[in-house]
Amino acid sequence: MPADLEDLPFADLPARVAAYRAGRDALADLRAIHAAITAAASSHIWISVTPLAVIETMLAAASRRLKAGEDLPLYGVPFAVKDNIDVAGLPTTAACPAFAFTPASSATAVSRLVAAGAIPVGKTNLDQFATGLNGTRSPYGIPASALDPARVSGGSSSGSAVAVAAGVVPFALGTDTAGSGRVPAAFNNVVGMKPTKGLISTTGVTPACRSLDCVCVFAATVADALLVTRIITGFDAADPYARRAPADALATPAVAPFRFGVLDAATLASCDAVVQAAYARSISRLEAMGGTAVAIDWAPLRDAASLLYDGPWVAERLAAVGGFMADNAPEVHPAVRDVIARGANWSAADAFKAQYRLAALIRQAETVWNAVDIVLTPTAPEHPSIDAMLADPVGLNARLGLFTNFVNLMDLAALAVPSDLTSAGRPAGVTLVGPAFSDGRLAAIGDLLHRAVPAASLGATRRALAATAPVAASPRAGVTLAVVGAHLRGEPLNWQLTDRNAEFLGAAKTGAGYSLYALAGTTPPKPGLLRDGGAGGVALELWRLTPEAFGTFVAGIPAPLGIGSVELEDGSVVKGFLCEPHAIAGARDITIFGGWRAFLTAARAA
Amino acid sequence: MPADLEDLPFADLPARVAAYRAGRDALADLRAIHAAITAAASSHIWISVTPLAVIETMLAAASRRLKAGEDLPLYGVPFAVKDNIDVAGLPTTAACPAFAFTPASSATAVSRLVAAGAIPVGKTNLDQFATGLNGTRSPYGIPASALDPARVSGGSSSGSAVAVAAGVVPFALGTDTAGSGRVPAAFNNVVGMKPTKGLISTTGVTPACRSLDCVCVFAATVADALLVTRIITGFDAADPYARRAPADALATPAVAPFRFGVLDAATLASCDAVVQAAYARSISRLEAMGGTAVAIDWAPLRDAASLLYDGPWVAERLAAVGGFMADNAPEVHPAVRDVIARGANWSAADAFKAQYRLAALIRQAETVWNAVDIVLTPTAPEHPSIDAMLADPVGLNARLGLFTNFVNLMDLAALAVPSDLTSAGRPAGVTLVGPAFSDGRLAAIGDLLHRAVPAASLGATRRALAATAPVAASPRAGVTLAVVGAHLRGEPLNWQLTDRNAEFLGAAKTGAGYSLYALAGTTPPKPGLLRDGGAGGVALELWRLTPEAFGTFVAGIPAPLGIGSVELEDGSVVKGFLCEPHAIAGARDITIFGGWRAFLTAARAA
Repeated sequence: MPADLEDLPFADLPARVAAYRAGRDALADLRAIHAAITAAASSHIWISVTPLAVIETMLAAASRRLKAGEDLPLYGVPFAVKDNIDVAGLPTTAACPAFAFTPASSATAVSRLVAAGAIPVGKTNLDQFATGLNGTRSPYGIPASALDPARVSGGSSSGSAVAVAAGVVPFALGTDTAGSGRVPAAFNNVVGMKPTKGLISTTGVTPACRSLDCVCVFAATVADALLVTRIITGFDAADPYARRAPADALATPAVAPFRFGVLDAATLASCDAVVQAAYARSISRLEAMGGTAVAIDWAPLRDAASLLYDGPWVAERLAAVGGFMADNAPEVHPAVRDVIARGANWSAADAFKAQYRLAALIRQAETVWNAVDIVLTPTAPEHPSIDAMLADPVGLNARLGLFTNFVNLMDLAALAVPSDLTSAGRPAGVTLVGPAFSDGRLAAIGDLLHRAVPAASLGATRRALAATAPVAASPRAGVTLAVVGAHLRGEPLNWQLTDRNAEFLGAAKTGAGYSLYALAGTTPPKPGLLRDGGAGGVALELWRLTPEAFGTFVAGIPAPLGIGSVELEDGSVVKGFLCEPHAIAGARDITIFGGWRAFLTAARAA
Repeated sequence: MPADLEDLPFADLPARVAAYRAGRDALADLRAIHAAITAAASSHIWISVTPLAVIETMLAAASRRLKAGEDLPLYGVPFAVKDNIDVAGLPTTAACPAFAFTPASSATAVSRLVAAGAIPVGKTNLDQFATGLNGTRSPYGIPASALDPARVSGGSSSGSAVAVAAGVVPFALGTDTAGSGRVPAAFNNVVGMKPTKGLISTTGVTPACRSLDCVCVFAATVADALLVTRIITGFDAADPYARRAPADALATPAVAPFRFGVLDAATLASCDAVVQAAYARSISRLEAMGGTAVAIDWAPLRDAASLLYDGPWVAERLAAVGGFMADNAPEVHPAVRDVIARGANWSAADAFKAQYRLAALIRQAETVWNAVDIVLTPTAPEHPSIDAMLADPVGLNARLGLFTNFVNLMDLAALAVPSDLTSAGRPAGVTLVGPAFSDGRLAAIGDLLHRAVPAASLGATRRALAATAPVAASPRAGVTLAVVGAHLRGEPLNWQLTDRNAEFLGAAKTGAGYSLYALAGTTPPKPGLLRDGGAGGVALELWRLTPEAFGTFVAGIPAPLGIGSVELEDGSVVKGFLCEPHAIAGARDITIFGGWRAFLTAARAA
């Protein structure tokens, strides 16, 4: 990376945007980046560069909107776009010059970023037609890993991962069908966020396997990847595979406790020593964060992975570019041509049979997801040299997908995070895999896992992860409920909250004006909270429930208790337990104890 | 139908079971049915008959369980099973003798019926391998419509529909991939319930198109079809296509008001006069029930229907029986062989492309489902004679699926209900189509529509629909809430209930002990209900909400109101509004008015 980029005085997106909003010259930074891209042609990272005049026009437009009072969460932020994703006015090549066309409009994901103030500075190299996991299958040259010029960048989103790792752009868009957004992340010491299928529109993306393709995000930190993902996520009626996500898919609730699935020794034996070491360290770190390791049955995931590699889904690639390839065979990379041509070997009956098999494997894998919240895998079993890759372009490529191929077929979310660099500076990464719409939870755990790497640096730069902001906890959408008695942690009805997956938010106190009474004749013993001019300051706990869980919880509360509004010490109002006043007759006022737990302790001592 | 069966003194399932439980000799009835089946070989309805000894053993087992106190909701009830659904010990032929095998265990749907006390009395004829909608494609002969020996029975579930129409069995299982559970219902004046895909396990069913196949139910009335569907519905982990249904998928909430989609004149022009007349009458009847007719865009549904007929899904049939057919070509019905062989014309790329097209059509059809609750279609555009069918076995068959083919592809539920018989006794039916898991709602509407047919008779029998029990209203799962003030119908906050699709259950009153107060300073004006020893008898309304809707409703209630328990006049307890007692200070006790509405009326008059 050019030294002037490395010395930019911010390490993450919020700091960069804050600097631009505070008056730092975004255009000067964009010019420096444009110059760096133009100067870096020999790195084979870029296929095309946004003309400086266009960059200036876009920034000017964003500045006007900012001045008009719009909130632009990515104001002035440069980003790179894999060259199978449309950017209006720049050619989309999919790394095949003969295939190139210049779209009049940008992909939906790009448009959303531009609407947020970000500036696309160029299109990045890829394994042609996104067919490959290694980064050597492009007529635009072979971008090497940003950390080792002798090793592959990974693919197919090779240029996007390297551009981020080199510090040229703070984030980049890629696509991920079989692992193209994760393998290059592992080989470049950056984060690769592969959101749930359908969360991000694929309108404007050249299809690889249309039923599986995902837009994905590369960034130096999980927090930045999540920030970008939140901006580009949204239902798009123009994309038949778009899905309406639950409101809390990208929320980042409290992490612990959680259960994570780990692979058996025989499966790990296919990984090299560096990867095995990174995997073992990651297990320890997840355990230190409050995770419990659980051995899982890898078979259904493994078998789904091999379905993708050896099965009829390759015919989707033929459906996408077969017509072009028939007319332009010499223009297609030989390894890519061989892979895609195999799609013709499969009949419609084969396709349906493989879908039946996949449905059975997904059912079989439910036992895994019933047992764990996430599965921890290596991201790739090894990091090949470019020479080795070119010597065995198909066999070695297939090995790289061992831990990634199953994810989109099985409708899962995944997040690739860096682990330690070796003493020789070689990266290795691990991936967290979770059910559809667990993206936010993966980010919450993945950020902590990344930050558990000692002295972690970002990509191939000298920048420190420690200098960046972590993922902020954002509770799931839901209702905050104050409990004051038998539902407190450790008390006999607390299970009614934990069984509903309620999230503990913390302790608090009521405002003034409340009294707490020990109700007579309740089983288990319960207090009643009443706003009757009492001294207040009653200890309570705040829990968060989904609307549905809250609904069933309220429905089950017996008289004389109910749910109304409770004012806290800080003046905020949450839902909380109320008591019908008739039940207070004969009840003891225990407000002076300061809370139900303190009263119970005193009562037991007495 | 043999006169002794026609004269059985019950017209529906609950009456039959009640009679058996009250001591009527179920075995005598089963013997008469067995004799009728055995005597009816020339009708070509049946492929095999359960041996009388087996029937006797099964009934004896059911009787023992009944005596042991088990609740057997179908005790002693005979039923027929389409011969592509396994019944332990009877051959499964799929109407191809060379294909036949004798399963050791029954299909899950059959096992559930037997567990409920029902007795499978035989296996019914079908279009071979469930490939056809007409009922003439079987080496076991051509069963005619039960109402017209010159016209087709419809297929592929031909024998099951005719057996019910003839009154031999009160219900029968069929399968429905492209309309096989609906077209024969229309041609035999019976009900055909095609539940949402995945609701009923297909374990033990010979596949046609495995991704689309549904088990379906034929019965004389909607109420009977619903009763049976409820018994056989349930998640089956052994079926990879089984789905976990929402708890209320088979609930039958209040019908009105609802919006139903109707077809344009050009589309209806493809139907014959009898069908057009039945369709027009059905529109009027739905309107009389509180429905509002809405013109819809038929194009996405029509295009999906033609995808099934002209697209690669036929390769699923090849996947299912292609291996058998390759070795046994002469044993396969020529029309069936020709259809299934076409499956080899499609490549895997074709299959994926068609799935993309289907995804786009499903997205396009969302505009239909946003505009209406259900769509009303004819069930089939005409009712061909057997001679006409045999003269044009492929072209005429294709026409029969015009209004049925799209349903399973688009993941919809459907219910075929009879309309009037013509003066010549020719049946015609209509179909209600709704979104996945709207099955109960379709039944609630369909039963009323069926009962709107003047002097409706059941199948080909003299029995009257009017002598049967209607579908009982069963509210959706949820929480019953009592409202007393601004949420009452016509009051300013009632939209907070209707926007949440709350169901109005009726009016009621509180028990004794409650007082109602007009709260000071509330906007809009609100009362407060307090259990303070007042006179009670306060008017309220009961509404039902889903747990999630209830949760968001409660979350939005401002102080001093809350939700607790309210005792009704009849002693039952529901969720209801409570008021914090501090808000009563200075409030006027209006209990004497008997309710908020009466108070408002009096206040306005004053």
